[in-house]
Amino acid sequence: MLIMMKAGSLPEDVDRIRRIIHELGFDTRAVTLGDRLGVRTVGADLDDLEAITQRAEVEQLLPIGQPIPLAAGQPRGTRSQVRVGPATIGDGFTLIAGPCAVETREQLLGVATAVKRSGAEILRGGAWKPRTSPYEFQGLGQAALELLEQARGETGLPIVTEAVDHASFDQLEACAEMVQIGARNMQNYELLKRAGRSSRAILLKRGISATLDEWLMAAEYILQAGNRNVVLCERGIRTYSGHSRFTLDLSVIPVLRRITHLPVIVDPSHASGDRRSVAALARAAAAVGADGVMVEVHDNPENARCDGRQSLSSEEFERLSRSIRLIEAAIDSPTEPVL
Amino acid sequence: MLIMMKAGSLPEDVDRIRRIIHELGFDTRAVTLGDRLGVRTVGADLDDLEAITQRAEVEQLLPIGQPIPLAAGQPRGTRSQVRVGPATIGDGFTLIAGPCAVETREQLLGVATAVKRSGAEILRGGAWKPRTSPYEFQGLGQAALELLEQARGETGLPIVTEAVDHASFDQLEACAEMVQIGARNMQNYELLKRAGRSSRAILLKRGISATLDEWLMAAEYILQAGNRNVVLCERGIRTYSGHSRFTLDLSVIPVLRRITHLPVIVDPSHASGDRRSVAALARAAAAVGADGVMVEVHDNPENARCDGRQSLSSEEFERLSRSIRLIEAAIDSPTEPVL
Amino acid sequence: MLIMMKAGSLPEDVDRIRRIIHELGFDTRAVTLGDRLGVRTVGADLDDLEAITQRAEVEQLLPIGQPIPLAAGQPRGTRSQVRVGPATIGDGFTLIAGPCAVETREQLLGVATAVKRSGAEILRGGAWKPRTSPYEFQGLGQAALELLEQARGETGLPIVTEAVDHASFDQLEACAEMVQIGARNMQNYELLKRAGRSSRAILLKRGISATLDEWLMAAEYILQAGNRNVVLCERGIRTYSGHSRFTLDLSVIPVLRRITHLPVIVDPSHASGDRRSVAALARAAAAVGADGVMVEVHDNPENARCDGRQSLSSEEFERLSRSIRLIEAAIDSPTEPVL
Amino acid sequence: MLIMMKAGSLPEDVDRIRRIIHELGFDTRAVTLGDRLGVRTVGADLDDLEAITQRAEVEQLLPIGQPIPLAAGQPRGTRSQVRVGPATIGDGFTLIAGPCAVETREQLLGVATAVKRSGAEILRGGAWKPRTSPYEFQGLGQAALELLEQARGETGLPIVTEAVDHASFDQLEACAEMVQIGARNMQNYELLKRAGRSSRAILLKRGISATLDEWLMAAEYILQAGNRNVVLCERGIRTYSGHSRFTLDLSVIPVLRRITHLPVIVDPSHASGDRRSVAALARAAAAVGADGVMVEVHDNPENARCDGRQSLSSEEFERLSRSIRLIEAAIDSPTEPVL
Repeated sequence: MLIMMKAGSLPEDVDRIRRIIHELGFDTRAVTLGDRLGVRTVGADLDDLEAITQRAEVEQLLPIGQPIPLAAGQPRGTRSQVRVGPATIGDGFTLIAGPCAVETREQLLGVATAVKRSGAEILRGGAWKPRTSPYEFQGLGQAALELLEQARGETGLPIVTEAVDHASFDQLEACAEMVQIGARNMQNYELLKRAGRSSRAILLKRGISATLDEWLMAAEYILQAGNRNVVLCERGIRTYSGHSRFTLDLSVIPVLRRITHLPVIVDPSHASGDRRSVAALARAAAAVGADGVMVEVHDNPENARCDGRQSLSSEEFERLSRSIRLIEAAIDSPTEPVL
Repeated sequence: MLIMMKAGSLPEDVDRIRRIIHELGFDTRAVTLGDRLGVRTVGADLDDLEAITQRAEVEQLLPIGQPIPLAAGQPRGTRSQVRVGPATIGDGFTLIAGPCAVETREQLLGVATAVKRSGAEILRGGAWKPRTSPYEFQGLGQAALELLEQARGETGLPIVTEAVDHASFDQLEACAEMVQIGARNMQNYELLKRAGRSSRAILLKRGISATLDEWLMAAEYILQAGNRNVVLCERGIRTYSGHSRFTLDLSVIPVLRRITHLPVIVDPSHASGDRRSVAALARAAAAVGADGVMVEVHDNPENARCDGRQSLSSEEFERLSRSIRLIEAAIDSPTEPVL
Repeated sequence: MLIMMKAGSLPEDVDRIRRIIHELGFDTRAVTLGDRLGVRTVGADLDDLEAITQRAEVEQLLPIGQPIPLAAGQPRGTRSQVRVGPATIGDGFTLIAGPCAVETREQLLGVATAVKRSGAEILRGGAWKPRTSPYEFQGLGQAALELLEQARGETGLPIVTEAVDHASFDQLEACAEMVQIGARNMQNYELLKRAGRSSRAILLKRGISATLDEWLMAAEYILQAGNRNVVLCERGIRTYSGHSRFTLDLSVIPVLRRITHLPVIVDPSHASGDRRSVAALARAAAAVGADGVMVEVHDNPENARCDGRQSLSSEEFERLSRSIRLIEAAIDSPTEPVL
Repeated sequence: MLIMMKAGSLPEDVDRIRRIIHELGFDTRAVTLGDRLGVRTVGADLDDLEAITQRAEVEQLLPIGQPIPLAAGQPRGTRSQVRVGPATIGDGFTLIAGPCAVETREQLLGVATAVKRSGAEILRGGAWKPRTSPYEFQGLGQAALELLEQARGETGLPIVTEAVDHASFDQLEACAEMVQIGARNMQNYELLKRAGRSSRAILLKRGISATLDEWLMAAEYILQAGNRNVVLCERGIRTYSGHSRFTLDLSVIPVLRRITHLPVIVDPSHASGDRRSVAALARAAAAVGADGVMVEVHDNPENARCDGRQSLSSEEFERLSRSIRLIEAAIDSPTEPVL
C-alpha cells in the first residue's frame, strides 16, 4: 500500500504515520512522489490500515505497486466527470452507440437517429479501423469524419471515434468531441503523449492483456501530459476461454472505483463478439457499477462490412436501453450503495 | 454446429436437411449420436442455420465440437429445474449463503438464521476443505455435518456442502440435500461417476481453467451415470489478471443458456476474494441471467478461519438481497427477454 | 524471501541475521516453520541477500511466499535422486517412453523392446485413462497392468502408469515401480495423501493452470505424508495460445532447480499434441536442464486408440535419443554449469 | 487447411485436387488468394493431405485460417535469409547481444567489444525505450544513436535498435542496419506500414498476447508494403504463471518453421526477467531450432538504468556462447533433422 500525504505535509507528519503503522505490526518506508511525501507499507491492505485513512494528514491510500499520482490522486471517494459535448460521463449511466465502422450516409444517419431516440447520448462510428489483416477493410477515413459531422448536425449527438496514429489524431481532433485510443494502441506511448496534448476527451480502451497497473499507467501518460479528460473502457481480456471472443472482466469495475477517480465504461460488443450475448453483458455492466456502455448498433447487421455479428439492431438496442434504466433505478435505490 | 434430429428420424430426413444446408453454401456430414441421427456442419453458425431450426424433423442445434447429448439434449429453449429440499434452482433467482467453513455451533446458527431472514433458500458451509497447502485448516469433517444438520433443524434451510472423495461423498449423501464437486475436482472423473450414482442434487463448479466443453463433459459424466440433478456454478477462471483472485467469467452465462438446459449459478466470493467486490459482482450475476448466486457470509469476517476476507457480514448480505430482488424485477419486466 | 535457519539455531542467531539484513536496507520478521526458526524479508531477492547465504547459521533462502519445508528443505544446491527399479531419476538425463494407452500385447511389447534398444530406462503405458468425455476409451484397467508386467519381464524396464483414484492406486502399487498422478488430479488432495502413504516413486504432473507454489504444495502433501520419492513433471500449461495443445513452460525448469531439490522431467508429447513438434521440444528440455523426458511412442501412430497424433514412431524416437545424448554431452562440458 | 496452387494453375487443376480430397473423405471449397487459385479444406490436417503435397500443381499447404500469402508463400521447406549488414539471419545460429538501453560511451563500447569477442554478430542497444510508466527513464534518443554508430565503427558489428513511432523510425533508418518493432507496437499498424516502406531489416517481436495468426498478419503488413526483410522474435507471452516475467513459448518455433519461410529468433532476457534463467533458455532456443537469440549483456548489471536484473555479464555471455556452439553442432549432426 502507498499512503499519500496531503500537500504541505512535513517529514514529522510522515514519521508520525509510520509510527502508528509500526504499532499495527507492519513495516514502512518513506517515499517521495513528485512533490508529495508518502509512506509505503508492506503486507498491509486497506482494511489493516483503516485507522490511517481517518488521519487529517493523509490524503489517500493506494493499493498498488507503482505510483500513478494523477490517475489516483483525488481525495478518497471523489470521482471525476468528463464532458463530451453536451453529455457527461460519470454522472449517471451513459449509453454510447453506433456502427462499428461508418459505411454510408444512410447507414449512419439511420442508426444515429434510432439510438438517439432510445436514449444514447454519444454516437460512436469508426473512420480508421485497425484490422488484424492488411487485406481487410480499413475504414473510410476522412470521408467517414464528414458523415459523422452530418450525423451530429442532424441528431445533436457528440461523436467518439478512434485515432490510430498522429495523422489521424490531428484530423479527428478537429471534429470529434471524444477520441478513442484502441486496445492495440494502449501502450503506443507516443500516441498517448499526443492525446495528452489535446483538450478533447479521451476514451482509453484496456489492452487485451493489460494489467490494471499497466492500464492506469497508460492513463497516467495522458494525464501527465496535461489532458485530464480521460475515460477508461473495459472491453474484454484475452484468456484461454474460447466461448466468447474475449473474456469481459467485470470484476475490474469495483476495483477501479476504489483506486481511481476516472470514470469507466464497458464495451460488451467487442468483448463477446456475439450479438446474442451483448444485451445480457450490458445489463451486467450497469449492475456492477460501470459509468456507461458502448454498444455497436447496425441497421442491417447481416450486411455490415465489419463486425456485423456483434451488432444489435435498433430494436434490440431500444429494449436494452429500457432494461438498463430499470437496473439503474434498482441499484440507485437507498437500500445499497453501489460499492 | 451439430444438428440433432428428433427421435424417430429416418436417414431420408437427414438427407433432406443436408440438402437444405448445402443450398445455404455449407458442407455437411451425417453422424450418429447414441441412438440419434445428426448432421455436422462446418463453418456455419446458429444464425446461418436459422431456417433449419424451424424444421419439424430437427430437435436442436448445438454450437459445440464434442457430443454432450445429455447436457444439451432437451428441446430448444427448455431449461431444467433442480430441487434441493424445499428450494428449486432454475425457477427464479436463488440465494445460497453461509460461511466458507463450518467452525462452531454459534457461528453457523448465527449465520444461518441471518441469511434465512434475508431470503437465502439454501445454506452453504464447508465440512471438508480442499486446501492448497497441507498445513492449512482442513475443515471439521463429520463434526461439521452434525452442526449443519442442527442448523437445518432450526432454520428449515436445505444444505449444500463439498465432497472431496468417495468417503466424504458417502457421509455427505446421508445428510446434505446438495453435494458440491469443487473446482479442483471438476475432472476427478471417479468422483463424478460417484456423483452420478447418487440421487442428491449436485453442484458442479467450473475448474479454474476449464473450457465450456470440458465443463459440460464433466456434467455429462454425472448425467450419463444416471443423476439428472446437476447445477453448474461459475466461480472465476485463472487469467493473467491479478487485481481479482480469479476472473469471474460472466460471459459464460448467456452462452450456457443457449447450449444447455442445466441451471447455472455464480459464486462471486471465491472469484473476487475481496468482500468489497462481492455485492457488485452478485448484482451483475443477477443482471446477466444466472439462476442464482452462492455467497459467503460470516458473522465475524475478520476472525474467520478460512476466507474471511471475502465474506460478507449479515448486514451486507441483507442489503445485497434487497438490491438483487429489484434487479430481478427489472429484467423480468416485459420490455426485454433475458436472452 | 524466507530464510530458513539451521536446525538448533537459537533466537539470538535469528536476531543477528535480522540485524545484518536491516543494514542491507530491508525489513524482516521472525517466523517459525514447524520446528525451525526462520526470517521473512520483504523486497529483497536472492542477489540482495547473497552475503546471508554464506552464514553458518543459515540453511537456505527460499524465494517463495508459502512454506514448503519438505519440497524446499535441503541444503542449497543439493538435488535429490529418485530410484525407479533399476533406473535413477536425477542422475543424468532419463528417457521414459511408451504408448499413451496400453492396447494389446503386440503393441506394448513391440514398443517396449524398441524404446529399450534406443536407450529408454523406464516404460510408460496407461491402464486407466482420465478422459474429458465419458464416451471416450477409458483404458484397459487391470488387463493393462498384466501386459505391463509381461513387458517388464521381457525387457527389464521398470513401469510408470497413472492412478486415478484410491482403487486404481491400490492395484498399481502392487505392480508399478512408479505411480503417476496426472495433471487433472494434481489438487486431488485425498489421492495425494494416498500417494504419500506409499513407498513407490511418484510422478507428479503439473496441473494445466497450476502456479509453481500450488505444484510444490501438492508435492508437499505427498512428502509430508511420508513418501520422499517424488519427481515433478512439466507437461504444458493452458494459455490463450492455440498453435500448440498446451504451452510447454520450459522456463519453470531453471526456477525449480533453484528452489526445490526434487528432480523434474518434461512431457513434450501431451504439451504439443503434435508429433512434428515433440522431438524439438524434447531436445529443448535437455538443453534447459531438465532431468529427463517422458515421450509417447507407438508402433502405429495412425491407428492408436488414444493420442496417436502426438506419438513418435520407434525410428523417430531412436533419432531423438541420439541427438539428446549429444546435447547432454554439450551442456555437461566444463564450459558452463547448467545453471 | 489452405492449399495454394502453383502460379498458372487453371480451374480444372483445382477441380482435380478437390476430387482427390473428396475421395479422402473431406469437404472442400475453391478460393482465390490475390492472383492465385487455392482450395480450402475442412477437418483435414497436413498428415491427412500428405498425398496432395506431392502433386505437381500444388505449391504448398497452409495450416491456418486467414490468408497470409506473403508470410507463407514460399515453396515448401524453403526458408528465407535476412541480411543485417555483414551478418545473415537464417544461416546458422546468430547471436545478438548488447545492453538493454544505451547509457554511456564506456558502457556501450565495453559491452560491444566483449560480445563481439564472444561471437555476437549483431549489437543491440535501446535508444528510445517504451516504458510502462511515464516516470521511468525513456532512453537517450538521438544521443544513443551516435554512440551506437561509434560502437559499430570500433567493432564492425551492425546495429539493431527499436523504433517507437514514425519520427524515431526516420532517425533509426538512417543509422541502424535493423529496426526493431517492439511487442507493444506489434499491432501498431501505421508503424508496420512505415516499416514496410523501408529497406532496412525489420525485427518484429511477438506481442505479449498475440496468436500465431496475429503475429504473422503483422508481418504480412510489412511484407505487403514492400519490405521482404522480416525476422520474427519470440519474447515470451503473458500467462497466469508468475515465476517468470513472461512465459517463453518455445513450442512456437517448430510450428513457425512449418508454416512460414521467415527466420525466427528468441529473446530469453525479456521473457524471464531473471539473469539466472537466461542462459538455460538461450540453450533451449538453440536446441528447439530457432535461428538465433537476442540477449541483454551489461558490464555492470547491478547498476544498469534499465532491466539490469535480466542482463548477463560479459563472462556469462562468453560461457553461453560456447555452450550454444556445442548444441548447434549436436543438432546439426546427421542423426536427426531439425524438424
